[in-house]
Amino acid sequence: MQGTMLYGARDIRFEDRPEPKIVKPTDAILRLSATCICGSDLWPYRGIADVAEPTPMGHEYCGVVEEVGKEVRNIKPGQFVVGSFATSDNTCIICRDGYQSSCVQREFMSSAQAPILRVPLADGTLVSTRDLPAKDVIPSLLATSDVLGTGWFAADAANVKPGSTAVVVGDGAVGLLAVLSARQMGAERIIAMSRHESRQKLAREFGATDIVTERGEEGITRIKDLTKGIGADSVLECVGTQESMMQAIRSTRPGGFVSYVGVPHGVELDGAGLFFAEVHLHGGPAPVRRYLPELINLVLTEKINPGKVFDLTLPIDQVAEGYRAMDERRAIKTLLRP
Amino acid sequence: MQGTMLYGARDIRFEDRPEPKIVKPTDAILRLSATCICGSDLWPYRGIADVAEPTPMGHEYCGVVEEVGKEVRNIKPGQFVVGSFATSDNTCIICRDGYQSSCVQREFMSSAQAPILRVPLADGTLVSTRDLPAKDVIPSLLATSDVLGTGWFAADAANVKPGSTAVVVGDGAVGLLAVLSARQMGAERIIAMSRHESRQKLAREFGATDIVTERGEEGITRIKDLTKGIGADSVLECVGTQESMMQAIRSTRPGGFVSYVGVPHGVELDGAGLFFAEVHLHGGPAPVRRYLPELINLVLTEKINPGKVFDLTLPIDQVAEGYRAMDERRAIKTLLRP
Repeated sequence: MQGTMLYGARDIRFEDRPEPKIVKPTDAILRLSATCICGSDLWPYRGIADVAEPTPMGHEYCGVVEEVGKEVRNIKPGQFVVGSFATSDNTCIICRDGYQSSCVQREFMSSAQAPILRVPLADGTLVSTRDLPAKDVIPSLLATSDVLGTGWFAADAANVKPGSTAVVVGDGAVGLLAVLSARQMGAERIIAMSRHESRQKLAREFGATDIVTERGEEGITRIKDLTKGIGADSVLECVGTQESMMQAIRSTRPGGFVSYVGVPHGVELDGAGLFFAEVHLHGGPAPVRRYLPELINLVLTEKINPGKVFDLTLPIDQVAEGYRAMDERRAIKTLLRP
Repeated sequence: MQGTMLYGARDIRFEDRPEPKIVKPTDAILRLSATCICGSDLWPYRGIADVAEPTPMGHEYCGVVEEVGKEVRNIKPGQFVVGSFATSDNTCIICRDGYQSSCVQREFMSSAQAPILRVPLADGTLVSTRDLPAKDVIPSLLATSDVLGTGWFAADAANVKPGSTAVVVGDGAVGLLAVLSARQMGAERIIAMSRHESRQKLAREFGATDIVTERGEEGITRIKDLTKGIGADSVLECVGTQESMMQAIRSTRPGGFVSYVGVPHGVELDGAGLFFAEVHLHGGPAPVRRYLPELINLVLTEKINPGKVFDLTLPIDQVAEGYRAMDERRAIKTLLRP
């Protein structure tokens, strides 16, 4: 089998890799229908997060079960499944509370940009569909695995409710699907912060009612102008930089909610500033597993089409070009066909 | 009139001051029944917060209305009233959402360690009792003005619910009343972090079920031991230092809630650490006005006795000794009799 490895900044290789096998009796082996490149993959790709040694890449996946370990009860060979980027037993106290991404047995998936994948804790991590899905819904099902699940968590953690005013900071794929999620949760007004015309267009398609192109102080002023001078009820931070985080906190009204779903890089929050902002703050690795059944159902019943964020599809052996296209912002998100 | 002024580190003077008068038509003038010294007053007293010029002190108060401005409708001369340390119109969008401490017209009170006090926005800031209260409940009514209201917000913002496990970091007066508040909200287990015997005793009286004397890594380990290895549902941070804040965040289970109610001094939160802790974080100046009617009622019906935190009572002209006693931790909290 061949799989995707990152050797260092901007050095992606698709090369021979050992074929995944059942290691633990709770594992499953999947033949992937599709996989993709995540915005978070760009941090190590750009050299911002360290890469100490050649590292397998990829954590978004869906496909057909080939084999299961002998303790797997609910997942069966031949089923189509989607899983989260974080494995979970789905039975511990933290899982039962809906935080499967912090399961006591959690592992982060990291070799999904390949045709075959081993998934630990298969029963707790994977969700199967009743039938094999049609080809044209594969991109949207793949999106539930992380990018939609993460945008959904952004809206949920920011307490988006019917009638809310929500701001989305970041026009990457997660930000765009955070717009879609806020719309699904009934937000009345959704302000997308974006400077890129193609992304603004998709944001509007997904439900954005307003676009703000300004950033920093000017961006905050614009948001205040649009929200009776006090700031938004909910602000969804989908980037992970100091600038985006401060933009989010300062655009929220006192008592409002800020969520953050991108791994923060170099972010330091001043305690006193946060105190006087008087916002609610919640974020972390999205507990996608909590949302998967609902999101898969929304896709299969054609209520949502999150697969639209994939504006580039490549055969998986061209994965390096997929990274380049996203790095240069020529593509929002690249789907890879094994 | 004489009032309390801070001239610099550890330089408190009780000296001649102009007698407060109605300045705006929404003001009220109170003759105070009692006032007190707040833990937060110790920051400038100790020279940790800057004092640029001689500054009037005090923001906790209750007393009898002497006079009201001509636009005051609900508050009348002769009434006994309690007010928050933050003024509020109680009508703006932020107030209506329950965040009166961030009211668009907010002012922080700052000259209440005196016999007579001007309160702006009297209708929105003050809550009156039906009758003049008995002398022996004055300390508990005074406590609702800030120290109890703040402890109550700590419990509320940390989502304490019937059956919760709550940890209180800090055994100052706010921390002790956060214990009382968590008990009132139905917490099943309340772990107070305290090293001082007299404070541990009061914590137990207020409802603490466990005491943890360790701090730092050891403190976190002890909390984990007491909470099935995962951390508490709710952690109430009632100090405001880097150490106490990290103690709080790291003692909380993923998906759990951290509140912080003391003005943070020198606190910097690492974004990535917060992200992977996956906690909810909420705090700020407590919206005491939201809780005042309920808290006053709990006091007058003898359900709670928060006035017990006052373990030193002095005539107000001995205010400097009151500061010294709290600074040296000889007293938990000093009540001042005008």
